[in-house]
Amino acid sequence: MAVKTDIQIAREAVKQPIQDVGARLGIGAGDMLPYGHDKAKISQSFISSLRDRPDGKLILVTAINPTPAGEGKTTTTVGLGDGLNRIGKRAAICIREASLGPNFGMKGGAAGGGHAQVVPMEDMNLHFTGDFHAITSAHNLLAAMIDNHIYWGNALDIDLRRIVWRRVLDMNDRALRDVATSLGGVANGFPRQTGFDITVASEVMAILCLARDLKDLERRLGDMIVAYTRDKRPVCCRDLKADGAMTVLLKDAMQPNLVQTLENNPAFVHGGPFANIAHGCNSVIATTTALKIADYVVTEAGFGADLGAEKFLNIKCRKAGLAPSAVVLVATVRAMKMNGGVAKGDLGAENVAAVQDGCPNLGRHIGNLQGFGVPVIVAINHFSGDTEAEVKAVKDYVARQGTEAVLCRHWADGGAGIEELAHKVVALADSGQADFKVLYPDDMPLLDKIETIARRIYHADGVDADDRIRSQLAEWQEHGYGHLPICVAKTQYSFTTDPTRRGAPTGHRLPVREVRLSAGAGFVVAICGEIMTMPGLPRNPASETIRLDSEGQIEGLF
Amino acid sequence: MAVKTDIQIAREAVKQPIQDVGARLGIGAGDMLPYGHDKAKISQSFISSLRDRPDGKLILVTAINPTPAGEGKTTTTVGLGDGLNRIGKRAAICIREASLGPNFGMKGGAAGGGHAQVVPMEDMNLHFTGDFHAITSAHNLLAAMIDNHIYWGNALDIDLRRIVWRRVLDMNDRALRDVATSLGGVANGFPRQTGFDITVASEVMAILCLARDLKDLERRLGDMIVAYTRDKRPVCCRDLKADGAMTVLLKDAMQPNLVQTLENNPAFVHGGPFANIAHGCNSVIATTTALKIADYVVTEAGFGADLGAEKFLNIKCRKAGLAPSAVVLVATVRAMKMNGGVAKGDLGAENVAAVQDGCPNLGRHIGNLQGFGVPVIVAINHFSGDTEAEVKAVKDYVARQGTEAVLCRHWADGGAGIEELAHKVVALADSGQADFKVLYPDDMPLLDKIETIARRIYHADGVDADDRIRSQLAEWQEHGYGHLPICVAKTQYSFTTDPTRRGAPTGHRLPVREVRLSAGAGFVVAICGEIMTMPGLPRNPASETIRLDSEGQIEGLF
Repeated sequence: MAVKTDIQIAREAVKQPIQDVGARLGIGAGDMLPYGHDKAKISQSFISSLRDRPDGKLILVTAINPTPAGEGKTTTTVGLGDGLNRIGKRAAICIREASLGPNFGMKGGAAGGGHAQVVPMEDMNLHFTGDFHAITSAHNLLAAMIDNHIYWGNALDIDLRRIVWRRVLDMNDRALRDVATSLGGVANGFPRQTGFDITVASEVMAILCLARDLKDLERRLGDMIVAYTRDKRPVCCRDLKADGAMTVLLKDAMQPNLVQTLENNPAFVHGGPFANIAHGCNSVIATTTALKIADYVVTEAGFGADLGAEKFLNIKCRKAGLAPSAVVLVATVRAMKMNGGVAKGDLGAENVAAVQDGCPNLGRHIGNLQGFGVPVIVAINHFSGDTEAEVKAVKDYVARQGTEAVLCRHWADGGAGIEELAHKVVALADSGQADFKVLYPDDMPLLDKIETIARRIYHADGVDADDRIRSQLAEWQEHGYGHLPICVAKTQYSFTTDPTRRGAPTGHRLPVREVRLSAGAGFVVAICGEIMTMPGLPRNPASETIRLDSEGQIEGLF
Repeated sequence: MAVKTDIQIAREAVKQPIQDVGARLGIGAGDMLPYGHDKAKISQSFISSLRDRPDGKLILVTAINPTPAGEGKTTTTVGLGDGLNRIGKRAAICIREASLGPNFGMKGGAAGGGHAQVVPMEDMNLHFTGDFHAITSAHNLLAAMIDNHIYWGNALDIDLRRIVWRRVLDMNDRALRDVATSLGGVANGFPRQTGFDITVASEVMAILCLARDLKDLERRLGDMIVAYTRDKRPVCCRDLKADGAMTVLLKDAMQPNLVQTLENNPAFVHGGPFANIAHGCNSVIATTTALKIADYVVTEAGFGADLGAEKFLNIKCRKAGLAPSAVVLVATVRAMKMNGGVAKGDLGAENVAAVQDGCPNLGRHIGNLQGFGVPVIVAINHFSGDTEAEVKAVKDYVARQGTEAVLCRHWADGGAGIEELAHKVVALADSGQADFKVLYPDDMPLLDKIETIARRIYHADGVDADDRIRSQLAEWQEHGYGHLPICVAKTQYSFTTDPTRRGAPTGHRLPVREVRLSAGAGFVVAICGEIMTMPGLPRNPASETIRLDSEGQIEGLF
């Protein structure tokens, strides 16, 4: 029998009306704003009504450093949600929304894979409920108001050379990376050089995902630094009076989206900030809402655990007062082999020694996560070519680290394939073992925070930062931003800044190339390596073959 | 008692669930894709199922040349729809969607006014169902694919100086009118000068509003000319293989949106092309769908009848095979006074002579419309300061033109205030008087078509067009575009190209400054005067005061 593709499986899903999915979490039909029959936003008034309820338990799903073999973090998040429901628990999952633009370059992705997916897949890869469009509008309104302010007299004395607020589009368009605007004469304003980023790179996106409610959203938007004056004082969004209108544009986007898994279990899909210059987690409001109405909430963080989980814990949990009860670390036999030096083309052959050689990458992530005071369990996401001996090698290694690895077959079997992990995660989360603490205190100096992450998480010998960066950090500290956490932008493929260094390298240093202040989102970005914030399209973009077939089904998107 | 504002009235509306509104037109809940509880899109499959049903009667609402006094065309469209339902007819209205961007410059508008409005007003002034965002995405995907094609080798030999496809945003942003893109070096492509228009000016918008179905949409998108080669051959969207992906992005946007009037009657609000460089009408698919499920469909056209109705009849009706059964021409006593020379500040005083002096503007529109073979009736949209003698002056004038003017009080009284007009419109539409014919045949040469509109509609002495324009038109004729209708872009305030010349001027000429080919939408644009396709924000934009109040209601948008 031919293996079905993700999209084939997704299209065969027997979806329940979204009202029925919501009802199982106690959300009334009147408290859901439907978008079609299979998507809904949860109303602000319902969310407000939950305030005094106790929270369920939060489970974080994270992974080893990604390899081309694929580790299946979202698939495991979805599968675990299904597995928990299957063993009778009231569980919900919380994942990120996909960005529209990149789907027209490379093929769009499923949310999950195999029999562990969230649907409707097509909508989630296109406009979904319009959240990202709202962010684009809000972001670009602020940009228009900056140039408009200058046009009408520049009362704030904005330095045209020091406008840091760019524009955004949810499109892969390299031609917009670097542009000159306001050409064409007096009526069009003052020419200057600027550019566009992709929408998910907008600070507005990061803010939407960190704000507790609409008031907090408006305050954070107001705090964003958009430019500097001739004498280098920061100009905030609030100074331009754009925060109120941006909040109005974002009021629906702030409401979490509810969809369902293939097994009709509730999935909140909301927000999707970049995982490099931002924190890469779904929205705080979706997570906190889910925790009020589900007993177990499974969520994930972008990239490998050194970036994704670190930011989830040090930024999102710190800011939102969240604390995970357990962490699931996803690994695969294939990824262990690649960490052990096997090339992608050679993954088919059994190679227990390579698995063993690759395991220290997994081991370092386990140790790092335990350092946050949370119990860790490893999920081995099963691939059909994995041999028993290879699986045993991973299990044995993990057992030696004082924890446990569970083989999971959710990709092939859905929730039924991950029951063992579900039971063990419940036991772990209910054990009261978790004693979450952030890695560094708010009052640690900014450079020391970077140093702490570099040494404790990346196991580097230290940080390289020149005087320009050191004095910039010192200046921000003076101006009251010293309490902010750090958001490191570096490659996801290695603990180091060199994407080819797999395994558990040591002896490296963390070179900080640039620092940026996201004063509204509330973190300082430390850029370590090249970061692209506006992708381009490939030579043969997917958009050339995407079309509706004769039956109105989308072809070429997946 | 203080007069309530439009937004106060709109917020007091007792809305019905949109499923109930649709049910009255025989649309099942499963055939509606809800967007919240008060908006829905009509499914493609339902629309397809209507194919063999007979059509209801189409009523066009148009107006005299607009004046600062306001004539209330949309208000009358909505009011008449309510009036028709009130006298027991199965009637629906079809109007355009509002553009988001401009609401952040000047205050946003109601859809209608007083007690003749469509709701939900807030949503309709913000993201609504995301149609315009989808158009922005589709338009900009094509732009990205053009630059990407050039980046990867330019196999089509596109001349960088002759790319006519710009980018769009639904934002008033003068800084984007004229920009240089692809700066910054090799990785960002080949620098060139281009710009952004507002989304409603996109040819994609015009196409969405003229396409009969998704297949027709895809074909028209493919036909769009985006650039010319070094040897001046046109390069189409189809050559870049962008038409399929654009259609996928637009598939939901193509489905008409259903909302309701304050009196819970069905209103289709779908599409909103510019009324200058495009045809300014709601979508064909909404109009044709409404005609299949309602006995009377009331729709409107942008601007005054010389532009709006002319394009509605010569472009939309011609292309979609539509024929109105009656035309309602909206006038106000105040606008007649302004046409008669009264300044806006002096409108409060009775001035029968000025009303009489202004009536020839009305008379010319009546004659023009009768020339299309459709029966015309005049709606006098009542304002509280109108005196009996002034109203009588309009009625007497209209009677002398061989038709009738009816006083309508829908702004104050809703459907109850417009029953007389509703009865008379039904009688007129049912009389079989209509014998619609377009103004010029498809096979008339392009310049002759412009000349025909100028003489027959504007009552000009002729057209001024230089050799460049004449040879451009001749070239398009040679290349197979000679059958297209003309879309004139000129001021809406006068029959001439001088906005200050009110009344019914004669002796003027129509100077054509530029011609453009919208090969996908299917018309040739004749630009007569300055046309702004990207507005700017004013000194104190509305966005500075728009915000959510403490109860979560939007302040400052209206």
